[in-house]
Amino acid sequence: MEHEIIGWIYEAAERIKSGLGDALKVDQKKGRTDLVTNVDQETQDFIVKKIRSFDPEAKILGEENGLDQTPIDHGRVFVIDPIDGTLNFVMQQENFCIMLAVYEEGIGQLGFIYDVMRDELFWGGPKVGKVFFNKQELAAPENKMLDEGLIGMNAALYRKNLYHAQEIANTSMGIRVLGCAGLDFIAIIKGTQLGYISMLSPWDYAAGKIMMEQLGMVTCGADNQPLNFRGREFFIGATQAAMKDIQAVK
Amino acid sequence: MEHEIIGWIYEAAERIKSGLGDALKVDQKKGRTDLVTNVDQETQDFIVKKIRSFDPEAKILGEENGLDQTPIDHGRVFVIDPIDGTLNFVMQQENFCIMLAVYEEGIGQLGFIYDVMRDELFWGGPKVGKVFFNKQELAAPENKMLDEGLIGMNAALYRKNLYHAQEIANTSMGIRVLGCAGLDFIAIIKGTQLGYISMLSPWDYAAGKIMMEQLGMVTCGADNQPLNFRGREFFIGATQAAMKDIQAVK
Repeated sequence: MEHEIIGWIYEAAERIKSGLGDALKVDQKKGRTDLVTNVDQETQDFIVKKIRSFDPEAKILGEENGLDQTPIDHGRVFVIDPIDGTLNFVMQQENFCIMLAVYEEGIGQLGFIYDVMRDELFWGGPKVGKVFFNKQELAAPENKMLDEGLIGMNAALYRKNLYHAQEIANTSMGIRVLGCAGLDFIAIIKGTQLGYISMLSPWDYAAGKIMMEQLGMVTCGADNQPLNFRGREFFIGATQAAMKDIQAVK
Repeated sequence: MEHEIIGWIYEAAERIKSGLGDALKVDQKKGRTDLVTNVDQETQDFIVKKIRSFDPEAKILGEENGLDQTPIDHGRVFVIDPIDGTLNFVMQQENFCIMLAVYEEGIGQLGFIYDVMRDELFWGGPKVGKVFFNKQELAAPENKMLDEGLIGMNAALYRKNLYHAQEIANTSMGIRVLGCAGLDFIAIIKGTQLGYISMLSPWDYAAGKIMMEQLGMVTCGADNQPLNFRGREFFIGATQAAMKDIQAVK
């Protein structure tokens, strides 16, 4: 299955790149900076078609086109974020990812995050027992404590100091704001950030969570509860040691 | 002169990359997250030697090794930041730059920013009348208003809302925190960010300022005064339209 999925992702990326010069149709979702483009929608449709022909029984949870309410916990569910970092996509034509995950009976089996413009694919999970950067197997990052590394954050959460974000930031070596969950997960998987704190929807974290856990790292929602896959929620992902430190910040 | 300088930068980068596996000697400067390594110091020494043999009369303003007090306004001054983004260098082994600038009688002539791990060199200025990305001439970015694009920020300045940073951020399409001035200048020069607001030392902005101005963009310090090149100071760089909007935020 993983080879088919990688094929879809590369094909979707080629379509996105070949259209980069074209005029985008940009619409606002919940606000001035929450954007969706025709490319998000077309890319999701393209991947959905591939999934339907590969596995007609599978369910699909996706950011666009009314697929955002599919429950995660029954049968095989493909989770799609066709363009993660849409604002970067529109403003920068880089720093965006295609993300895809496969869950079976609620258990994450495979995650894929593709940094389209840098041509960097991160993928893996329990189904293959490993995580890869392109064709190279990745080692588990060092189990750093919070004060030993950088942490990704959502800017609004940091500004408003929700969930002690500023105290957590001040204990760390510093924050980075990348505007694309996929890039934060990539940094964590590579070991260049020790964690990420944000407000995320299931398609934002589905793939990254699988790969983080495969590499011995942990995720949770508000109040140290498991992520619920039912809408936008508070998200923490970190090394085990940093997660303990984050939970201890009051 | 520009060809010699590019040669020094590439040679310095090769030295940095070839030592990436070696143990770093890391020291703190003004605090726990303000780091300097033996590689910063050795890289500056390497470039200083090249400058001295190329132009024994030239003055040097550099971040390390006691060269940080050289005035900018007399004779030919080379401004060096051997590793911009030292924290990223230590924590990530990527997302850092070598920066170099040439000023003559206080006027910026040439700026160079090299993203070492991505092998992306941005350089140019009045001396050549252009700005290049590697060998390709760059067009001037669109003159975007503040509400039309992303803006780079220093996290502490944003958190503390110094100089109306939060109001500026809220008017923009969003902030990015990259932890490396060079990467913010690269984004501005490419047109993927419309500006950058931070606290910077002369070697942090010397090269970027020259290239921004060559492309029709503007910089200033606190109270809309020119940058003074005499120590760490408030810095704004932006498109002309965004600068007007930023100055109007009260």
